[in-house]
Amino acid sequence: MLQDDEQLFDLQCNNLKIIQKKTGFKFGTDSVLVSNYAKVKKGGIIVDFGTGSGIIALLMSAKTAAEKIIGIEIQTEMAKMANRSVDMNQLSSKVSIIEGDIKDAASIFGKSSVDAVVTNPPYKEFGTGLKNQDDAETISRHEVTCKLQDIIKSAAEILKPNGYFTMIHRPSRIADIIENMRIYKIEPKHIRFVHPYPGKKPNMVLIRGNYLGGKFLEIGEPLYIRDEKGDYTKEILEMYARNFSCDGGLYE
Amino acid sequence: MLQDDEQLFDLQCNNLKIIQKKTGFKFGTDSVLVSNYAKVKKGGIIVDFGTGSGIIALLMSAKTAAEKIIGIEIQTEMAKMANRSVDMNQLSSKVSIIEGDIKDAASIFGKSSVDAVVTNPPYKEFGTGLKNQDDAETISRHEVTCKLQDIIKSAAEILKPNGYFTMIHRPSRIADIIENMRIYKIEPKHIRFVHPYPGKKPNMVLIRGNYLGGKFLEIGEPLYIRDEKGDYTKEILEMYARNFSCDGGLYE
Repeated sequence: MLQDDEQLFDLQCNNLKIIQKKTGFKFGTDSVLVSNYAKVKKGGIIVDFGTGSGIIALLMSAKTAAEKIIGIEIQTEMAKMANRSVDMNQLSSKVSIIEGDIKDAASIFGKSSVDAVVTNPPYKEFGTGLKNQDDAETISRHEVTCKLQDIIKSAAEILKPNGYFTMIHRPSRIADIIENMRIYKIEPKHIRFVHPYPGKKPNMVLIRGNYLGGKFLEIGEPLYIRDEKGDYTKEILEMYARNFSCDGGLYE
Repeated sequence: MLQDDEQLFDLQCNNLKIIQKKTGFKFGTDSVLVSNYAKVKKGGIIVDFGTGSGIIALLMSAKTAAEKIIGIEIQTEMAKMANRSVDMNQLSSKVSIIEGDIKDAASIFGKSSVDAVVTNPPYKEFGTGLKNQDDAETISRHEVTCKLQDIIKSAAEILKPNGYFTMIHRPSRIADIIENMRIYKIEPKHIRFVHPYPGKKPNMVLIRGNYLGGKFLEIGEPLYIRDEKGDYTKEILEMYARNFSCDGGLYE
């Protein structure tokens, strides 16, 4: 089930395992954060845009009462690897991985067809998901903006009215995110900045919106990854514990 | 110089004094915060939208090297009172107060004529500035949104290219603020959330943008008003000290 350049990562909970590349991008705190932050209604259908290794789809299958979680991934090899992770965990009745382009989401899933879209899209700096790290370094600012716009546009197309859009991204992109959410009628409802330490600038931002939702935006408490002493905060430790329902470790 | 319903407030620095109404709105931390946060170039012209008692104009005359600071205020009585504060401080060569409507700013000041616009506009909850507290309570959400749009539109009209727009507002309005800044080509450059205590949700937000500026947005460190023990933070104390260049007190 494993290829030469892959390794198995044990999530240490319910025997949940994930296949990752030995080299290159591995799932990080951001996937865990967005999985916890996402809102999903019971029995709902979730789509994970740019699922990569499938980590968000797997995490959300363990922690939510969604009926179906579908990850879409443009890279053939990654989609196949994620599919093998789903099979390995015997989750194929709940989780599917589709190879495809986010821009084609409306034709793949149908308009107004899903309850939630979750995404940890490629950041300019990270270059995971749609682009590999080398390509990402060559992405111009303009191209990055287009990508973000594509993601939000496609999410709006497939979300049911009041369906949830949840994303994690870089704080520097928050104006682009809000501008595009307003353009495509996903009303920003909640924003939470993620800070590496108390009092430091945020290095990640979580944002949630509702397609065709009414105006009411809340900025949540700062989310600190570590405390002044450098230890993980109680909130982060609880998040990981909740995720894995047991003694899962921290994987950054 | 004082009317029956007015009182003199001593800023305890350089003999700077301000006339305020005995009842109703008095200047608060938000005016001090935005005065400190605003960027102004030496010798520049600053316009303060909805100057009220003139507090921001007075503070900025003390703390900046601007050549001219002009406060615009729609309420006749407030504009007159602010003017008397300017006279009392013998600042009429540097500070002017104009009675007028922000929406007419382009015809009052001329297009592309000023280096910075600063504003502490009426919040929905506060109702200071353009509206008194009673009126504010009746303002519908729609009307409030129009007001914000008017402010940003007028600022864009009078700002020189790369001129600074600086505002303090409620965090819940940040999507409206960013959306309108993008519409009127004031590029958001820096955002700082103001929290009453560490770890608490922000209750104010400072935002700075450049008219026709290039894209690069930074989210600053959280600004905490008080520490865990309930004391003013070092940053706030320094801000007040810097404002008044001496032992000015804290006025909330």
